[in-house]
Amino acid sequence: MQAVLVNGFACKDPMAVSADDFFKAAMLDKPRDTEKSKVGSNVTLINVMQIPGLNTLGISIARIDYAPLGENPPHTHPRATEILTVLEGTLYVGFVTSNQANRANQLFSKVLNKGDVFVFPQGLIHFQFNPNPHVPAVAIAALSSQNPGVITIANAVFGSKPMISDDVLAKAFQVEKGTIDWLQAQFWENNHY
Amino acid sequence: MQAVLVNGFACKDPMAVSADDFFKAAMLDKPRDTEKSKVGSNVTLINVMQIPGLNTLGISIARIDYAPLGENPPHTHPRATEILTVLEGTLYVGFVTSNQANRANQLFSKVLNKGDVFVFPQGLIHFQFNPNPHVPAVAIAALSSQNPGVITIANAVFGSKPMISDDVLAKAFQVEKGTIDWLQAQFWENNHY
Amino acid sequence: MQAVLVNGFACKDPMAVSADDFFKAAMLDKPRDTEKSKVGSNVTLINVMQIPGLNTLGISIARIDYAPLGENPPHTHPRATEILTVLEGTLYVGFVTSNQANRANQLFSKVLNKGDVFVFPQGLIHFQFNPNPHVPAVAIAALSSQNPGVITIANAVFGSKPMISDDVLAKAFQVEKGTIDWLQAQFWENNHY
Amino acid sequence: MQAVLVNGFACKDPMAVSADDFFKAAMLDKPRDTEKSKVGSNVTLINVMQIPGLNTLGISIARIDYAPLGENPPHTHPRATEILTVLEGTLYVGFVTSNQANRANQLFSKVLNKGDVFVFPQGLIHFQFNPNPHVPAVAIAALSSQNPGVITIANAVFGSKPMISDDVLAKAFQVEKGTIDWLQAQFWENNHY
Amino acid sequence: MQAVLVNGFACKDPMAVSADDFFKAAMLDKPRDTEKSKVGSNVTLINVMQIPGLNTLGISIARIDYAPLGENPPHTHPRATEILTVLEGTLYVGFVTSNQANRANQLFSKVLNKGDVFVFPQGLIHFQFNPNPHVPAVAIAALSSQNPGVITIANAVFGSKPMISDDVLAKAFQVEKGTIDWLQAQFWENNHY
Amino acid sequence: MQAVLVNGFACKDPMAVSADDFFKAAMLDKPRDTEKSKVGSNVTLINVMQIPGLNTLGISIARIDYAPLGENPPHTHPRATEILTVLEGTLYVGFVTSNQANRANQLFSKVLNKGDVFVFPQGLIHFQFNPNPHVPAVAIAALSSQNPGVITIANAVFGSKPMISDDVLAKAFQVEKGTIDWLQAQFWENNHY
Repeated sequence: MQAVLVNGFACKDPMAVSADDFFKAAMLDKPRDTEKSKVGSNVTLINVMQIPGLNTLGISIARIDYAPLGENPPHTHPRATEILTVLEGTLYVGFVTSNQANRANQLFSKVLNKGDVFVFPQGLIHFQFNPNPHVPAVAIAALSSQNPGVITIANAVFGSKPMISDDVLAKAFQVEKGTIDWLQAQFWENNHY
Repeated sequence: MQAVLVNGFACKDPMAVSADDFFKAAMLDKPRDTEKSKVGSNVTLINVMQIPGLNTLGISIARIDYAPLGENPPHTHPRATEILTVLEGTLYVGFVTSNQANRANQLFSKVLNKGDVFVFPQGLIHFQFNPNPHVPAVAIAALSSQNPGVITIANAVFGSKPMISDDVLAKAFQVEKGTIDWLQAQFWENNHY
Repeated sequence: MQAVLVNGFACKDPMAVSADDFFKAAMLDKPRDTEKSKVGSNVTLINVMQIPGLNTLGISIARIDYAPLGENPPHTHPRATEILTVLEGTLYVGFVTSNQANRANQLFSKVLNKGDVFVFPQGLIHFQFNPNPHVPAVAIAALSSQNPGVITIANAVFGSKPMISDDVLAKAFQVEKGTIDWLQAQFWENNHY
Repeated sequence: MQAVLVNGFACKDPMAVSADDFFKAAMLDKPRDTEKSKVGSNVTLINVMQIPGLNTLGISIARIDYAPLGENPPHTHPRATEILTVLEGTLYVGFVTSNQANRANQLFSKVLNKGDVFVFPQGLIHFQFNPNPHVPAVAIAALSSQNPGVITIANAVFGSKPMISDDVLAKAFQVEKGTIDWLQAQFWENNHY
Repeated sequence: MQAVLVNGFACKDPMAVSADDFFKAAMLDKPRDTEKSKVGSNVTLINVMQIPGLNTLGISIARIDYAPLGENPPHTHPRATEILTVLEGTLYVGFVTSNQANRANQLFSKVLNKGDVFVFPQGLIHFQFNPNPHVPAVAIAALSSQNPGVITIANAVFGSKPMISDDVLAKAFQVEKGTIDWLQAQFWENNHY
Repeated sequence: MQAVLVNGFACKDPMAVSADDFFKAAMLDKPRDTEKSKVGSNVTLINVMQIPGLNTLGISIARIDYAPLGENPPHTHPRATEILTVLEGTLYVGFVTSNQANRANQLFSKVLNKGDVFVFPQGLIHFQFNPNPHVPAVAIAALSSQNPGVITIANAVFGSKPMISDDVLAKAFQVEKGTIDWLQAQFWENNHY
């Protein structure tokens, strides 16, 4: 029989719940491979898909590994605010405010050292970049949803399936279609799952 | 004395509230100028800044004018879902889903004729484009927040103040810095306020 | 097999969702018949029953047609605030505040012309009336729920099935039972669906 | 200096809060006068106006006294569901469902004896009537908001200040204006505060 | 076929709902036995398990009987604020604030007489005690959730299944293990269901 | 002039906000002193009091240091779920379910190694214990509120100011008053701030 979905996830019989429904042997302490990623980063998100007991509880956690000069490229979480702390290395981080009169599209950025904390408010475009050419970086981030969602801007705008028409994008970015086509030709996998 | 802000807006003495606090002579029936906009559109949003009585009530409304071949370029609303109906003309509209396994970054699009209705879920990147080279288009859109926020992707990513470093953006979009610099050089005002 | 209901509506397998789940060929641009309605109006609501993708997203949209001297009679939405703009004609609109000390049951009303915007806060009794004896009127309204509900006061109070006892209503309205019976005898269909 | 209002109520300095902010010597055990009320009932609501510590906590409580043949006439709470239990006497209670296809405006009613419990869902029109011609009744009701609001239908529809025009009401109730004028002429105070 | 659960409870077909889904012949007016309870109290909670129509509506109600010198021992409701009024007798009630700088763990207490009202904010540890050695007491309490949950501190800390290790508890309470073992040896049923 | 408080915290003029309002140089990478704590742990919580920009965003983060055999004793968060990952060492963790029929007060526990993740649902009593007699442990925890609150059970029940009467506590824990007095005599500072 098909499972019953609440918020898209199965709702377990309360009599059958156990500690395992609130646990994940996640190995968040281990460095993850950043070499396969074209942007030099690897996000390991533990959300309701890994821990069924999180359903409706409004939180998730992630480890992010950054290669030297690697980055978690501009992206948004449609349903969550993110709070991040640096475990290893240094990160240049920022978010861009929305289109508000007088202060539209301000970049709020900061260089974070080990142990610093930064907040990326819900739905705003943000990024983290490891400026060190030799040393990797690691962060732990938490998100205010059990299913925060991730939209990597480059993938969603220039790599959707099917593609957004280059008429739309050329006008949006105020460049000729050739530039858009070039951007669309850069195939890459996103680094979030 | 400084006004007291709730959600960033003044909270009026209940004894002084009147019908005018729930009203805006908005002229949403009149065509708006789309010529000053580089993308060929003009968004007139009536939210809590125009109607103080909307505070905490969770809704706002907008009229959008599109020049022939004009568009409301890819953008998100960090705090609202949008529902739109076409009053005049034709629109090619779409949104891109988030990074989910198996179905990452799907473009869900549709050609809308007069009277059709389409939904853009909260936080997802979406656009509307008028494919007709001769005839303008008009839509009414409603949003599920009194202060939905708007992030125009091109402006936030390539036009923030200050700019996001081209190191970050070149890697994010997997192109050389020259392409990024060219994108950043296209100055334009956003069409949302 | 019976469909699984969330908020009373079926929750679709995410792998099977398409653009059609966010779309309705609603013909909201077309005048609707107001002659069958005893109150001279016709409400076409596009909510989660027409667009399954709206489930949990908290918004819906409606077109309302008013005959000359027609009205959308006093009613409430138990789960939504409404924002309305006039597309054609003129409307006399209003809502009544609740029983608060000093300012109980104030009528906040306004004459709206084309393009004006008015807000009816959640759960308050409100109406729209077309004062023009010759010209119809049209409005677009949006509601802050995918399933706002509608309670037409006359229908719910004097036309429920079964009827509320005339003992209860005679005392409530401080009139003799004959007046209540007369009110209950006016059978009519509501204009919302 | 003017107090700072949150949800319309003063927000106290946390260092100055005491047990008295969560307490009301409410005398909810004492019979209240039902003779001044034209409908034969008296509602004593303890909400955030009586207990400041209730702000944001989402609950309130009331005692309702009913004279023999007295009633709490048809009304709604725009921001709360109500749960009620009978302390003394008998009550005939009911609510009317909204305009839904197939089952519009159903009256769900019940005779409640001492100790019985009934629920009136948020925003629906409901009433309680004491059918006993000799014995008073008493109930305790709780509401799911610290400021639930009350709209007595008769007062809001026929007794607003200023009056709703009898053109609007005659059409709404499908009766001649004389009947509306008669209804509007019945002045009475509401029994909720 | 297995019932579909929303919030852990079955969601009924709207066409099959009746007044009985909003009703419980609860006999809340009758004294309940407090003799079987080691703490001298008996809580009769009417929540979504007794009244299916309460699902998602955010409220429940309870009658609490207290023997002379009986108590409702320190407990919390993880998902609800409680508002209580005394029907019979006298109660000494209180709650303890959380660990905040300067004012950590303040006891806010009050002696309540018949008709008084007190509020226990969501998640805080609270109790009610009948200080009268001869006369029982009765209260009606309402909670801001259809499924508030109850955690009796003594049962959860010293009576869980399996037990929390006495290493953990001895250090937590800063006493020797023998004292913990003694506390764990006091078997008793909780008085909430 | 007194600052305006929303949720008890100052609401800044949007024009004056900067990156510093979303940042805390928190030194969460540094071991904290666990020797002053009688329970052998130290919780460093970064919430809205440290980062004003967190207000209304619903998340916070903490570092927890555990001495060998140290613990974060049984406590609850009245307004948040917690998700935790181990950075260093080993933790024995658990929470106790509420008083539900058939499965009341179940202890759900687990031994967590480096990189494992565990969830403590909102409002439930939980603890973490470092079972290693020689090696300290470190965890990062995130909470689903910008102001989650903490109630350490021992402090709130046996260390409140003023004390809860030993009549109440002796009956609650089913022990003689001397045992309660002994528990109340163990003065200690809580390890959360």
